[in-house]
Amino acid sequence: MPRNRGFIFATRPTRDNPAGAHNFQLFERDTDELAEGEALVRNHYLSLDPYMRGRMNAAASYAAPQALGEVMTGRTVGEIVASRHPRFAVGDFVNLTGGWQIFSKSDGGDMRKIDAQSAPMQAYLGALGMPGVTAWYGLRQIIAPKPGETVVVSAATGAVGSVVGQLAKIADARVVGVAGGAQKCAYARDELGYDACVDHRAPDFAALLKAALPNGIDGLFENVGGAPFAQSMRNLNAFARIAVCGLVASGYDGTPTPLADMRVMLDKRATMRGFIVSDHMDLWPRALRELGAYAKSGQLKWRESVAQGIDSAPDAFFAMLKGGNFGKQLVKLV
Amino acid sequence: MPRNRGFIFATRPTRDNPAGAHNFQLFERDTDELAEGEALVRNHYLSLDPYMRGRMNAAASYAAPQALGEVMTGRTVGEIVASRHPRFAVGDFVNLTGGWQIFSKSDGGDMRKIDAQSAPMQAYLGALGMPGVTAWYGLRQIIAPKPGETVVVSAATGAVGSVVGQLAKIADARVVGVAGGAQKCAYARDELGYDACVDHRAPDFAALLKAALPNGIDGLFENVGGAPFAQSMRNLNAFARIAVCGLVASGYDGTPTPLADMRVMLDKRATMRGFIVSDHMDLWPRALRELGAYAKSGQLKWRESVAQGIDSAPDAFFAMLKGGNFGKQLVKLV
Repeated sequence: MPRNRGFIFATRPTRDNPAGAHNFQLFERDTDELAEGEALVRNHYLSLDPYMRGRMNAAASYAAPQALGEVMTGRTVGEIVASRHPRFAVGDFVNLTGGWQIFSKSDGGDMRKIDAQSAPMQAYLGALGMPGVTAWYGLRQIIAPKPGETVVVSAATGAVGSVVGQLAKIADARVVGVAGGAQKCAYARDELGYDACVDHRAPDFAALLKAALPNGIDGLFENVGGAPFAQSMRNLNAFARIAVCGLVASGYDGTPTPLADMRVMLDKRATMRGFIVSDHMDLWPRALRELGAYAKSGQLKWRESVAQGIDSAPDAFFAMLKGGNFGKQLVKLV
Repeated sequence: MPRNRGFIFATRPTRDNPAGAHNFQLFERDTDELAEGEALVRNHYLSLDPYMRGRMNAAASYAAPQALGEVMTGRTVGEIVASRHPRFAVGDFVNLTGGWQIFSKSDGGDMRKIDAQSAPMQAYLGALGMPGVTAWYGLRQIIAPKPGETVVVSAATGAVGSVVGQLAKIADARVVGVAGGAQKCAYARDELGYDACVDHRAPDFAALLKAALPNGIDGLFENVGGAPFAQSMRNLNAFARIAVCGLVASGYDGTPTPLADMRVMLDKRATMRGFIVSDHMDLWPRALRELGAYAKSGQLKWRESVAQGIDSAPDAFFAMLKGGNFGKQLVKLV
């Protein structure tokens, strides 16, 4: 059996010793023999996603914490290289929770085949996978913009945000992005079709945001939290809908994202909903069908940040949490 | 024409000169002659409601501010004593925005007849009026409790809260009240049927609340805000619904009710909605029909705090904002 290489989650971050690459430990070992009903996957891409940071904490958020001493969790795409599973054959391309490693064994429970002909396989980790369905759910099921309404999207060029923005344009909304830096903002406007994009690092961010919102905010898709979120909340219209998808800028290390005054919820008769896309598995087939059609027609684009080799995973992960990525963060393993 | 007496809204509260009875000015004057299409009402009861405090501020919240120099707004019930209106005859009992005064002229625009036989007329200012419909909307349309779920209601014995609690019991929920003082809590349990009620003035409120919530909170009907609200937010279950109806304890004087960390919305995939019942006039007939039926069957009870005479209105109003009332706050004018 081939030699495997990957990362164990070795220690939890603490207040005194914040999260970092030191929490992971590189391993190298032979893969086990397959039992009946198992298949072996050679992973081609690993997806790095903000939710992983939450799993590193001992306090469970919506999911159980990552177990210490085990391979760090993560979705991968790859190819079946050996199989004793009746539904998977050598050469099949698949999407699974393969973890931060090159080879993964699976009993098929959370593995499904992907069509590596109609889209690059790594798209099933992004716009045609969990981040895409996340975007679809929050925009369609929570914000549900009417034509002409204004939707604000934070982390506007990220794996989730970029799909939110494009779906909102397809729904004929006015779409305003919030992103870190001029380059991301230019991409949001020029490539993704945002009507405006505001750099949250700009010293006059509050004024720039307000200027980009002549008609206020009807829908807010929040991926980040922190100070930019507070500014968005100051621009809500009556009956605004706020989809809370992530609070990556502030929450994982125990820095809260407060809402300064609940009164805005009452004055604006606003609706705020936190959501996790895995609660809504029943809607995945519909979402993936729609996203696939938009990708095929060219209405849905995406961009990737690709780190090379499994050894780069920890550094790439923490760089992403600080906004260092530009589009969907992947690690190429082949 | 008869002599009228009431209160003008004379000055706005400011940071340096907080709201108080001094903002109102007693007047006495003859009522005007009726024009064609007008009717004159002798008000029997004036309703005092927390929303009035918001109207006193210059910054409009969800409604336009109360105009200076005009009769202070408020719903009343009374009897037609003179009429040049085709739909209203002398002797009809009516519900209208009559204001803080004994006699009101109306063109019928926001006046409707009430059935003073099947319920005491002042009930149409409480459980069978705006507060009742407010309770109905927040509980049925936002919280929508399933049998066995736990619903928490703040200001549990107030005009709105008492109806929320009883409707939640009718829906077979476990219902926990939060109220100020042992007497109100005893009434909530013994008369209104709450499963438990916790005194927010108790020094160990947080522990008492937690003990009353062995299964956490699925629905939170928030009338008050402030520190008790923050405690409730610490006990949410996954998929909790929070109906934000009022923040009377904290908000009107510019003291915010913060949400310490938005992360709870994400971790619990919670939904929070602020609402104003006047946005949902289409549902009033259905709500009033149901509330009337529950009142008739004895499943819906209420309690009143009645101040005597129009001159008592300002003091009764500010006492209510501090929780001095016990049940629906009224002013008896006849």
